[in-house]
Amino acid sequence: MTAFAVLVDWGTSSFRLWLVDGAGDVLAERRSGEGMATAGEAMGGFAGVLERQLDALGADADLPVIACGMVGARQGWVEAPYVETPADPKSLSDGAVRVPDAGRAVFILPGVCQRAEGAFDVMRGEETQILGLDVGEGRRLACLPGTHSKWVVLEGDRLTGFSTFITGDLYAAIAGHTILKHSVEPQDDAFDVAAFQTAVRTAFARPAELSNRLFAIRAAGLLAPGEAQHPATILSGLLIGLELVGAASRFGRLDETSVRLVAAGPLAERYRAAFDALGFAAHEEDGEAAVRRGLLAAARKILT
Amino acid sequence: MTAFAVLVDWGTSSFRLWLVDGAGDVLAERRSGEGMATAGEAMGGFAGVLERQLDALGADADLPVIACGMVGARQGWVEAPYVETPADPKSLSDGAVRVPDAGRAVFILPGVCQRAEGAFDVMRGEETQILGLDVGEGRRLACLPGTHSKWVVLEGDRLTGFSTFITGDLYAAIAGHTILKHSVEPQDDAFDVAAFQTAVRTAFARPAELSNRLFAIRAAGLLAPGEAQHPATILSGLLIGLELVGAASRFGRLDETSVRLVAAGPLAERYRAAFDALGFAAHEEDGEAAVRRGLLAAARKILT
Repeated sequence: MTAFAVLVDWGTSSFRLWLVDGAGDVLAERRSGEGMATAGEAMGGFAGVLERQLDALGADADLPVIACGMVGARQGWVEAPYVETPADPKSLSDGAVRVPDAGRAVFILPGVCQRAEGAFDVMRGEETQILGLDVGEGRRLACLPGTHSKWVVLEGDRLTGFSTFITGDLYAAIAGHTILKHSVEPQDDAFDVAAFQTAVRTAFARPAELSNRLFAIRAAGLLAPGEAQHPATILSGLLIGLELVGAASRFGRLDETSVRLVAAGPLAERYRAAFDALGFAAHEEDGEAAVRRGLLAAARKILT
Repeated sequence: MTAFAVLVDWGTSSFRLWLVDGAGDVLAERRSGEGMATAGEAMGGFAGVLERQLDALGADADLPVIACGMVGARQGWVEAPYVETPADPKSLSDGAVRVPDAGRAVFILPGVCQRAEGAFDVMRGEETQILGLDVGEGRRLACLPGTHSKWVVLEGDRLTGFSTFITGDLYAAIAGHTILKHSVEPQDDAFDVAAFQTAVRTAFARPAELSNRLFAIRAAGLLAPGEAQHPATILSGLLIGLELVGAASRFGRLDETSVRLVAAGPLAERYRAAFDALGFAAHEEDGEAAVRRGLLAAARKILT
């Protein structure tokens, strides 16, 4: 069991590290909440966070590190400038930036940006997941759900376009900081798949009415307080439905496309239910395995 | 100058009081931030707030008070149960609730609710503005913009339907509690009417893409940091555009309808710019004058 490299997916609020051998098998892993948003302020900064995690594994001092995600943002450790669309994920390693004075070899992969008029967009981390997908042939769509969901178009070897939908971000802001804070109390609102799918269909059919449909959640609580309301479920369904109709507006009919749904756990379940509600096909892939494969592919190009 | 009644528009976060004579002329007025949200906790509660404001005017102890707004909500002073649509604004006074043990005669006007499937909605205060409009004949639409904008359909004497859009509430939540908090800094973002109108048209034409267009505000700041961005202006334009397309979805083509825009000041200006951007006609009325006329009409029915 000889370690080959350290792979790190370093996002805004999460840190995930894998020690892998030359075959890509995972020898050990670490995960924490020391994301980009807090690591800069931690003792020793980004280097301190990384070394403490590696010490805990007893990793060799000369083992190289390949990282992706917000750690490469301007406000991260060292900025890894964006690659522009159309981008070849297999060439991400060409844009890797080596962190100066890191004590060991640390390379940060670039994000991808899109400068199309009316569609300015950026990603950091998802491009490495894309690199780790078995992308197949022809034009394909990938959906990477989250706080800032990414929808990505792949054509041949190229990542030709993408759109971000701030679905999770909107959910937290609306549930916590609008009139709906009086309605959405997750603790007494178990996920109800029928209510969720109805809300997905409503937002997909009538995205224009979103703001009114949000208030209707509150009004239902006032006018029919005894009935099961599922406010959190409905809010989630409206916002995921809005994301799906937005993706269809940007990328064409989803019922004629098989979408790669790159997710795991409860989020994958919820998006699967949304796709089902609309009769769309989604092919699921585990996002964590994808980012690890992408980091490994980049590591092989950079280190060998 | 003989005072006839005290009229109070008592909303969630504002208190406005007018002392009027029998002709409806304003003899004195008071305004404060002692809205429903805080008045209950004030010394002496709602009665304490009201009496201190009246004392400041030297108002007679037996002068009656007619109030509307959130003061009549369940969490207000005394609940004035909703009148259901279709409702006749001229009959609001029939549903007025007299506050017990208020020391003087205090009447609170009811709000209006709508129980239509998929369109549950409530209002408190706006129905009294509607009562104060010179509503004309036939089917008409009124837009009452605000934190929770109301769009109201009037047919003959009746308020037959309405929809709330939480435009201002969404603005504050998105500007303050999503990734856009890094972009929207009102102090360095003067209102730009061209950028605003472009955003209004974008949201009106492509409401499905709202969530993506929000992220594009952030991406533009990252990708073209030197250029004038107008993030606050664009956010406002997208959300008001979403409201207008939502109203069109609920109530039919706005280009064939003259809408009463019941507003004043900067909000009226902004909505006028939005209507202009889409080529819609709006006839403006001052919302404060309207609520005062509505309260006066109710006072005349209740007190004489």
